[in-house]
Amino acid sequence: MRIVQKFGGTSVAGVERIRHVAELVKASWEQGIETAVVVSAMSGETNRLIALANEMMPQAVEREKDALIATGEQVTASLLAIELHRLGVPAYSYTGLQAGFITDSQHSRARILDVQCDHLSTHLDAHEVPIVTGFQGANAYGHITTLGRGGSDTSAVALAIALKADSCDIYTDVDGVYSTDPRIVHCAKKLDFISYEEMLEFASLGAKVLETRSVGLAMRHHMPIHLRSSFHNISGTLVKDEDNNMERAVITGVAYNRDEAKITIMGIPDCPGVAAGVLGPIAQASINVDVIVQNVSEERYNDITFTVPRSDYAQAMHIVTEVSQKLQARKVLGDETVAKVSIIGVGMRSHAGVANQMFATLAKAGINIQMITTSEIKITVVICEKQVDDAIKALHTSFDLDDVTV
Amino acid sequence: MRIVQKFGGTSVAGVERIRHVAELVKASWEQGIETAVVVSAMSGETNRLIALANEMMPQAVEREKDALIATGEQVTASLLAIELHRLGVPAYSYTGLQAGFITDSQHSRARILDVQCDHLSTHLDAHEVPIVTGFQGANAYGHITTLGRGGSDTSAVALAIALKADSCDIYTDVDGVYSTDPRIVHCAKKLDFISYEEMLEFASLGAKVLETRSVGLAMRHHMPIHLRSSFHNISGTLVKDEDNNMERAVITGVAYNRDEAKITIMGIPDCPGVAAGVLGPIAQASINVDVIVQNVSEERYNDITFTVPRSDYAQAMHIVTEVSQKLQARKVLGDETVAKVSIIGVGMRSHAGVANQMFATLAKAGINIQMITTSEIKITVVICEKQVDDAIKALHTSFDLDDVTV
Repeated sequence: MRIVQKFGGTSVAGVERIRHVAELVKASWEQGIETAVVVSAMSGETNRLIALANEMMPQAVEREKDALIATGEQVTASLLAIELHRLGVPAYSYTGLQAGFITDSQHSRARILDVQCDHLSTHLDAHEVPIVTGFQGANAYGHITTLGRGGSDTSAVALAIALKADSCDIYTDVDGVYSTDPRIVHCAKKLDFISYEEMLEFASLGAKVLETRSVGLAMRHHMPIHLRSSFHNISGTLVKDEDNNMERAVITGVAYNRDEAKITIMGIPDCPGVAAGVLGPIAQASINVDVIVQNVSEERYNDITFTVPRSDYAQAMHIVTEVSQKLQARKVLGDETVAKVSIIGVGMRSHAGVANQMFATLAKAGINIQMITTSEIKITVVICEKQVDDAIKALHTSFDLDDVTV
Repeated sequence: MRIVQKFGGTSVAGVERIRHVAELVKASWEQGIETAVVVSAMSGETNRLIALANEMMPQAVEREKDALIATGEQVTASLLAIELHRLGVPAYSYTGLQAGFITDSQHSRARILDVQCDHLSTHLDAHEVPIVTGFQGANAYGHITTLGRGGSDTSAVALAIALKADSCDIYTDVDGVYSTDPRIVHCAKKLDFISYEEMLEFASLGAKVLETRSVGLAMRHHMPIHLRSSFHNISGTLVKDEDNNMERAVITGVAYNRDEAKITIMGIPDCPGVAAGVLGPIAQASINVDVIVQNVSEERYNDITFTVPRSDYAQAMHIVTEVSQKLQARKVLGDETVAKVSIIGVGMRSHAGVANQMFATLAKAGINIQMITTSEIKITVVICEKQVDDAIKALHTSFDLDDVTV
């Protein structure tokens, strides 16, 4: 049995937390499990280093910012190795460069091209624990790169794949993935397992337990991720390939995102290229457009509605107002008080009537649906923000997600 | 023209100091000088990292302590590169490992075996500035090592040799080497140049401006060191091969060390192996014995006197008292209030009567000499600590070292 354990910033926040992490690693090692470790910087450390760089120069040269920030994980890795030695566990820290993480040259958002880590395998064979700094690597010229925020999860999955590990255990400050936000629904269930596809949908909806990149990478290589807490000693959620043999609920969970604003352009002359004409300038301003709905409202006139992150709302409205004049649109409407609610589940592929059940449930709860968009394993509605909690509760109950033991 | 500039901890103590260092590097670069840079950790940073390691575990495993501490210089190097870019100077930071500093595997006190830095030469050829972290390298397996305290000077000299530089400029918080301590003798002279041999003697006497190791390395490769201030824009002291063509004073300077204690064992039976019998146990306790004088006082009886650092005095006395009983010595005497004063100068090789002038000068000043020891270019006396200032002033004047312009 071979595993990679990854510990994030809050799990290694200080000397005491690192001691606790060492105990977790030791427990695995003592069971004879070949254990490799990936660590993040202590929480706050990366921000401290970025602040130093910014004090020197805002918009500092990326190569040097990467080299600077990469020291954060290096400190954690060494301290953890020191503590493991104290506990009698032979451990060796490696920077991304030393571990063989070869990336492209896009500083601050590099992609991993290869992990050349035979020397780490040798440690595992000798029942030793290699500790690798997450979030970083080096390009073909040996220059230090970083993978961007959250890149440590991706480092861990990539290492697990390269080491042909049986599992990648990602330790964090939550117990696992829940059927919905337990702060809203007290009887939300912790999911024992979830498919990669579902996890990707959850992640893209702002359930920030795992980075989308790491899930996509694990999915392509069929690497199971065990998402669990470094604070509570209970099993978490296993993210893995869908298991067709298992009986399961139609819907896995209900997700939501309040960070939404809606913009509608009404009465645009209906001709080819209109959508591009509206959305192009928005994209050029690096604003991320999410749900898009287009409808022909009257003959030869179009309505387009889309959502943007709330922080980009003012700028997006400004752009759209200008564009609508050029396009001779009739009206522009905006609403900053909307939110997105989604039901997610691979089960809906094989079950008819899921969408209808969702809409009926919301209607019964008196919730007006403003927009609808669907994917293969997800149905999303845009509703008034004030009704988000009610919508989630109603859907959670309707789709049999409530934990009856609570 | 190609030079290596090295900046120590106080020269890069914070963002403002690093900005100033960047100006110095830029000035050199703008003159068309091929300029490589070696930096230390910001002052205090290495101690902060060591404290972290000690909090984890006193006597932390050396490999990991090295990896931890090495991040200190990495932060400085990146920040300096960021600032140089801001000033329009293309600069690239490298860790010791990246720069090609190959060392042996003695963690925390590694020796440099080779510097494989063709890629840094390429930067210089392209009129770019490579910045290398001092004090560190990596062994043949790519594991990070550190060179021990003060190793940054050695890094700089080694890099200058590898890059075939014309000079290694070491910037520090003093203006150069003085004929003696200016706090004691106000008319002490800053020396325009000093030979490697003399510098070694000064360094070994506690004039901590340059590490002994770096001077020895520079001497073997005939690499000139320009020791100068990063705070004042004046030329410092050039440490170089002795120049036989130059007319120079007999004595270059007067050094001293107050951190001395004296132990005498009287009346040991005179037979082979007695000195080893006394000093062996001291050496085993890792106590550094300095001046040693042995005399036959009476027939078949020996007196041995030696000095140790004052902090080791109590332990040394304890050991010697035990040993003296075994050896049936007559008496053990100790004195914690002694100090060492030395005159140094390659000129004394070709001048007779230097020792005599020294003793006469001290006698005239009413200073009693307790011990004498000589080397080819140095004469050292041990005297009562209270008389150190008087001795230095008298010798400085007697050997024509006073700066008459002050």
